[in-house]
Amino acid sequence: MSTVFKKPSQAQLDSFKNRDVLSAADLTKEDLEIIMNTAGYYEQQLAENKIIKDMEGKVMASLFYEPSTRTRLSFETAMLRLGGSVITVAESATNQTSSTAKGETIHDGICVIDGYADVIVIRNPVTGTAQVAANAAEHPVINAGDGAGQHPTQALLDIYTIIKEKGKVEGLKVALVGDLKYGRTVHSLVEFLAIYGCEMILASPDELKMPEDIVKSLKDRGLKVTETNNLKDAVVDADVLYVTRVQRERFPSLEDYEKVKDLFIVDEDLISGAKDGMIILHPLPRVNEITVGVDKHPGALYFKQAHNGLYVRMALLALTTGSVR
Amino acid sequence: MSTVFKKPSQAQLDSFKNRDVLSAADLTKEDLEIIMNTAGYYEQQLAENKIIKDMEGKVMASLFYEPSTRTRLSFETAMLRLGGSVITVAESATNQTSSTAKGETIHDGICVIDGYADVIVIRNPVTGTAQVAANAAEHPVINAGDGAGQHPTQALLDIYTIIKEKGKVEGLKVALVGDLKYGRTVHSLVEFLAIYGCEMILASPDELKMPEDIVKSLKDRGLKVTETNNLKDAVVDADVLYVTRVQRERFPSLEDYEKVKDLFIVDEDLISGAKDGMIILHPLPRVNEITVGVDKHPGALYFKQAHNGLYVRMALLALTTGSVR
Amino acid sequence: MSTVFKKPSQAQLDSFKNRDVLSAADLTKEDLEIIMNTAGYYEQQLAENKIIKDMEGKVMASLFYEPSTRTRLSFETAMLRLGGSVITVAESATNQTSSTAKGETIHDGICVIDGYADVIVIRNPVTGTAQVAANAAEHPVINAGDGAGQHPTQALLDIYTIIKEKGKVEGLKVALVGDLKYGRTVHSLVEFLAIYGCEMILASPDELKMPEDIVKSLKDRGLKVTETNNLKDAVVDADVLYVTRVQRERFPSLEDYEKVKDLFIVDEDLISGAKDGMIILHPLPRVNEITVGVDKHPGALYFKQAHNGLYVRMALLALTTGSVR
Repeated sequence: MSTVFKKPSQAQLDSFKNRDVLSAADLTKEDLEIIMNTAGYYEQQLAENKIIKDMEGKVMASLFYEPSTRTRLSFETAMLRLGGSVITVAESATNQTSSTAKGETIHDGICVIDGYADVIVIRNPVTGTAQVAANAAEHPVINAGDGAGQHPTQALLDIYTIIKEKGKVEGLKVALVGDLKYGRTVHSLVEFLAIYGCEMILASPDELKMPEDIVKSLKDRGLKVTETNNLKDAVVDADVLYVTRVQRERFPSLEDYEKVKDLFIVDEDLISGAKDGMIILHPLPRVNEITVGVDKHPGALYFKQAHNGLYVRMALLALTTGSVR
Repeated sequence: MSTVFKKPSQAQLDSFKNRDVLSAADLTKEDLEIIMNTAGYYEQQLAENKIIKDMEGKVMASLFYEPSTRTRLSFETAMLRLGGSVITVAESATNQTSSTAKGETIHDGICVIDGYADVIVIRNPVTGTAQVAANAAEHPVINAGDGAGQHPTQALLDIYTIIKEKGKVEGLKVALVGDLKYGRTVHSLVEFLAIYGCEMILASPDELKMPEDIVKSLKDRGLKVTETNNLKDAVVDADVLYVTRVQRERFPSLEDYEKVKDLFIVDEDLISGAKDGMIILHPLPRVNEITVGVDKHPGALYFKQAHNGLYVRMALLALTTGSVR
Repeated sequence: MSTVFKKPSQAQLDSFKNRDVLSAADLTKEDLEIIMNTAGYYEQQLAENKIIKDMEGKVMASLFYEPSTRTRLSFETAMLRLGGSVITVAESATNQTSSTAKGETIHDGICVIDGYADVIVIRNPVTGTAQVAANAAEHPVINAGDGAGQHPTQALLDIYTIIKEKGKVEGLKVALVGDLKYGRTVHSLVEFLAIYGCEMILASPDELKMPEDIVKSLKDRGLKVTETNNLKDAVVDADVLYVTRVQRERFPSLEDYEKVKDLFIVDEDLISGAKDGMIILHPLPRVNEITVGVDKHPGALYFKQAHNGLYVRMALLALTTGSVR
């Protein structure tokens, strides 16, 4: 195992058993430490080509009531790499599940699936669904994104990537750029960065600023937070550049989207002015907000970051089901 | 293992090898006993946290040409819990499979899949499809519902639940309520109840009475069968209350549906007049025909009943493929 | 193992490690020999009821961005029979993946999935997609059909079937009939038949002749190639009759399709004039181009041919990932 991570103690592992993972706000600094160390432990096991059987005989329900291929495949691979099995509901945007179509509540549907599976991963376009599912299920529920609400596992893999690459999160200067208003990923991420006491630079078009209550809450905790609409200012001094996509589907009209989408493009020219060792992250998919030329930059880690999701999700599945051996 | 169930003899197990499970009418009392005992055997194995490998290396084809998430996930979990693997076709209502779209017959499609899989589970909106599939396949075929035809595995899990909870089926008074005309589940279930000599109370709105030929056939076998349109009369003396959904999709018009859907609501008030120890079953999904308040009643077993489907389907998969170890 | 096939040497096995399988043109005669022998090796293992674990702990990404149930299930079964696991994207014709819908490139999507999976199987309606995927991925990519381009694994299973049934391919007279213009399967297959020096009889309606450049290329290599629009002439002297479907979706109009679709029907009468031991192949699905009466003919091997796809795909998955034990 990399010297950065060490396998958690049995008491730490036990503290996670039967917990749900619904929201970034539920997780303490010690929780994060346990998750990161478990993720590092599994990454090491896979790097050594070990065949892991920690979840042999167990079943994960992968319930995606909204298309999200990347997140779904990441969770499913995580379960399979742990030696477990997967049952899947992968709805398209235009189709409904049979039960929902027949008028069944989420509560009833989850009560049934809870009898099949040992752990439930759920994605739903309606905010709050993960909590409803957690109330219905006796087994652990992991939120894989619910509407405008939470997507905690994305923020966890962001933190894992930072620790792997920079050795720690504490004391880093993190620039978050792009769409800070609608992006649920950055809302979860700043919660974690706050726990580690990071300085944050928030760079966005004026229309897409971080919500005021979040900025206020960060400042109230004594954190240094700077807001700007100038991308260059954000990059110059950052240790981590976190780029988010200006998502078409978050805008009321195509016109609103077109106005801002090209203002925050990260290209080679911009990166040339960055600090040595700066890493560039992105939750993906990207459209054109990072140019393809940047992919060759040694700090361009967004694909590696996506791969890290696998280890973090392995950690969450094994921790919540008490399966880490 | 619960004292109610005991593992079948090798001769009993062998009697099921390579059989199809297409219709309730194909199953004798001894068949039922073998299925129930095998289901009980597997439930016990899982309760002891044993990792079962009876179907290791085997593949189940899960062919759902009509959406039925609950039944599909139940079968798939059953196969995975037996140590086997699953290949899936999960069609939405609006999409066709590629081969069907290209004009291929069910017969040809099954001939191909028969070369991949060790057992085939099929659901199709067209009545009789399971029989066509069974004719085409050399491997066992299990009917997971074909149109207005059969859905034998649902009725099997109903019987399993009754045996588990009441110790036996013989001599029980079973009230079947709701939509007795269109519900294929109750049509399969009364076949089994007849085998066990149960008294049956059939309570439905007049528009949704049990088909006359079925009632006649039950009476011809000397069974006591009462028909009523008064829900209270049905409940007062029953050991088992079997509630079915008034399914919107079975009605010619929305108006016809609206007229009857609220007449047969099972609520706390109704249940308060029931016999001690009465159990309440429902094939699910429920909409509003059982109020949420009833869920807390000790006899409200419909979610447990759905979970029992797992053990019954494990039994069918392992029995038909000769895999019980 | 059948005496026809023998397990390849370690050096032969090693020669395939980390290779992509994108096009029939990439494969040499020695490559074909290695694939066929490996397929034969796995068929033998399964025939002996061995539980194979050559790919235990490994994950295959099954990316079907166009419906093709038969090919998808064949690849997935192959991976499962090797002891591996599968993650699946099975798009319907009318739905897009979430990432594609959000504007992501195939390159980026594959870069992410490359971090989850050990081998990638891809089908896409756009010609050339498999090559784009192979450029993006570090892991092996297998082309399961890309638009009007290649579908090499179908042609490989055709060759495997011929070797199994006739003992060899060299020196055989092969009649290819039906739609030779649009069928990508026959275009890949003639490449392989050319490698083995087969004589070819090309029988099609005039509107659906084999493209001239392909015929010329075959003749330039010194092969005997005859073209005809008379089905009977083609059958009379053939060792192998390869029938293809006149595919509705390849025609500009329904009218063009209707004009030719019944001209090349293979029926019992036609077959009665064939050489003893002639085998009949078809890539399936068939509609009416082979009558159901022909299915009973001892040479009617199209369903067996489809089953052979399993062994060939097992071979490709295990060879490219260096997993043959």
